[in-house]
Amino acid sequence: MDAQHEVEQVAGRARVAARALALATRARKDAALHAMAEQLLEREAEVLAANTEDVARAEAAATDPGIVDRLRLTGERLAGIAQGLREVAGLADPVGEVVRGSTLANGLELRQVRVPFGVVGMIYEARPNVTADAAGICLKSGNAALLRGSSSARSSNAAIVEVLREAIASTGLPADAVQLVPGETHDSVKALMRARGHVDVLIPRGGAGLIRSVVEESTVPVIETGVGNCHVYVDRAADLGKALAVVLNAKTHRTSVCNAAESLLVHAEVAEQFVPRVVAALQEAGVLVHGDATFAAHDGVVPATEEDHATEYLALEISAAVVPDLDAALEHVRRYSSGHSDAILTEDQGAARRFVAEVDSAAVLVNASTRFTDGGEFGFGAEIGISTQKLHARGPMGLPEMTSTKYVVIGDGHTR
Amino acid sequence: MDAQHEVEQVAGRARVAARALALATRARKDAALHAMAEQLLEREAEVLAANTEDVARAEAAATDPGIVDRLRLTGERLAGIAQGLREVAGLADPVGEVVRGSTLANGLELRQVRVPFGVVGMIYEARPNVTADAAGICLKSGNAALLRGSSSARSSNAAIVEVLREAIASTGLPADAVQLVPGETHDSVKALMRARGHVDVLIPRGGAGLIRSVVEESTVPVIETGVGNCHVYVDRAADLGKALAVVLNAKTHRTSVCNAAESLLVHAEVAEQFVPRVVAALQEAGVLVHGDATFAAHDGVVPATEEDHATEYLALEISAAVVPDLDAALEHVRRYSSGHSDAILTEDQGAARRFVAEVDSAAVLVNASTRFTDGGEFGFGAEIGISTQKLHARGPMGLPEMTSTKYVVIGDGHTR
Repeated sequence: MDAQHEVEQVAGRARVAARALALATRARKDAALHAMAEQLLEREAEVLAANTEDVARAEAAATDPGIVDRLRLTGERLAGIAQGLREVAGLADPVGEVVRGSTLANGLELRQVRVPFGVVGMIYEARPNVTADAAGICLKSGNAALLRGSSSARSSNAAIVEVLREAIASTGLPADAVQLVPGETHDSVKALMRARGHVDVLIPRGGAGLIRSVVEESTVPVIETGVGNCHVYVDRAADLGKALAVVLNAKTHRTSVCNAAESLLVHAEVAEQFVPRVVAALQEAGVLVHGDATFAAHDGVVPATEEDHATEYLALEISAAVVPDLDAALEHVRRYSSGHSDAILTEDQGAARRFVAEVDSAAVLVNASTRFTDGGEFGFGAEIGISTQKLHARGPMGLPEMTSTKYVVIGDGHTR
Repeated sequence: MDAQHEVEQVAGRARVAARALALATRARKDAALHAMAEQLLEREAEVLAANTEDVARAEAAATDPGIVDRLRLTGERLAGIAQGLREVAGLADPVGEVVRGSTLANGLELRQVRVPFGVVGMIYEARPNVTADAAGICLKSGNAALLRGSSSARSSNAAIVEVLREAIASTGLPADAVQLVPGETHDSVKALMRARGHVDVLIPRGGAGLIRSVVEESTVPVIETGVGNCHVYVDRAADLGKALAVVLNAKTHRTSVCNAAESLLVHAEVAEQFVPRVVAALQEAGVLVHGDATFAAHDGVVPATEEDHATEYLALEISAAVVPDLDAALEHVRRYSSGHSDAILTEDQGAARRFVAEVDSAAVLVNASTRFTDGGEFGFGAEIGISTQKLHARGPMGLPEMTSTKYVVIGDGHTR
């Protein structure tokens, strides 16, 4: 059986499950989520044993220790995953929400109502926790999940999905609400990207290469997530104390995430005061600064290349430049930003207003760290990813972003 | 210069114009829309002369008279186009609308605000009125428009766009807010579909073939519009008088549009009463019925094939079948509907509720003609098309659907 046929068969089962999920009450979906959490904890030994296989395989292949760590599950991490599922159960059900409604002049009653997408495909890398997180968010939003994790996590993903499916079935909802996409090779990823009509939406989560290939090859509609070349611009009217704290936080609080800062811009009027302080603080925190001439005058700062300004380091590195004015800062951001999160530090209302209006990114922050662009921080409770595209959803995607809408029109024999 | 390079150059100018449009006040945009309307009327002779060239070329090529009619402009039609632009000026500005907002526990102020997409590409067929309509809707929603009409309307489109650009420039907004995509061949369409990063959204409007090819080939995000295999289901609990009126209206009010009915389903319990009446009425209106055995027992009804049930006739033809119950009706709709608009006729609240919940279409109507699925009828005032996809927008797309959003986060030195 070829990969395309195989994926379409799995998607067909997902479609049947999706019909039941779309009609399931919140109470029923929440019961399934709690069962999923319980079963994961009860069958911890089984899941961890499967994970040990993945970790052993990765270590034998001399995989980077950072990646092995992301792959590894522990009792504590599993408890965190279960807790995440319970939290999703606690969130409002997006399905059925009336987005807008009115009675038209002719008496027709019009409502726009949230409905599930149907079948959601996820293509993601290493972390096995995404398997359970995505399954939970899809189920709560009434969508059937087709999960294609990385082959390095295959044993963990298989064990987790088996547990989740049995938990879901035990509450009367269809087990096929959550399925792994079969196949280890790239063929199955390709087949998923070509399953237009069978899969309603595809969400890639992972590195820039993965996301680019899905966006370019998929005929299934894609929601692009997560590449973040985020900027912090320190304006001439910045409170330099706040600025220093925000730059450090945005760069060093957690380096491997898409909302970490990768580029620092400083207004020329405050450069003399601020550059030495920020370089010293960054270096003390272990950050390698790739700077322009002003920055590179400091010991340990290496000259920034054109490429540095465009780089998402995801590491203790940052590019840095002095700009003559706000216009130049806006121009720099326009040129290099990936449109994820960009921040200005300023006490000047006019500068803040211009930055907010002119920076075309999913999140624009004033006097706040880029690290705040996050579904949890925004109060969404759960997040399937951070969209960096403009269609459908932009920024952190919570449960409402995992739905479509439908118009319901009620008449009494109305004709035109 | 190859087509890709050419399109990217045009798109680059559109990007610069889009920046100005994104910051333009409503007053300024409305002034441009009024100028566009005025100039079209003032330069009527010029536009009609250009249109005459297109019509002559089409007639010389023995084009179908229906298509020639759609291509033809008259003083009256031009007045209608100008009036449409004025009506768009009267609509609320979607840009800047706060979609949601809150103050987070840590004091951060969070707002989700509507912003333009940026550069919108339109690929459309014959009708030159779409050129002005699309330009007006894009401008009001703050987007620069890249228009690729059909080559059969090239003189009309060129004349209209020239008038619109001069009108826009006369009010101080950039002329490049509206541009024609250069090139007559399919290469320029292809280049537009590959201009990812240069064009933010692509909206195809036209026949099923055009839309399918754009959806499959484009790497630019696409909003799919308009194929409608719309169903009317007459339930056993239908008021048959209302049902007859709605079936006739949905099928015959205007046949060439995507919200016209193409399939009729009748519950077996009312078939004996209803089928003869509806066949007679449809035939009297000139409709050819492709029916199942029950329908085909009537003179003039031809037997329906599997393909008939899947066909969007866009003509005075309809497929028709008797179904044993509501479940069978739902199954039929699930199988053949294109997910545009499907209607149930029933006085039974339970049947209506099930139909609304289980039919997965952009619009689901109860006791109302499918013809109501329309931006104008829904009160949106202007419509760029009817989306039949689930991502971003579903159903009639008005001005808000022509925008994305951005999160604005205001703090006072906040760090995590």
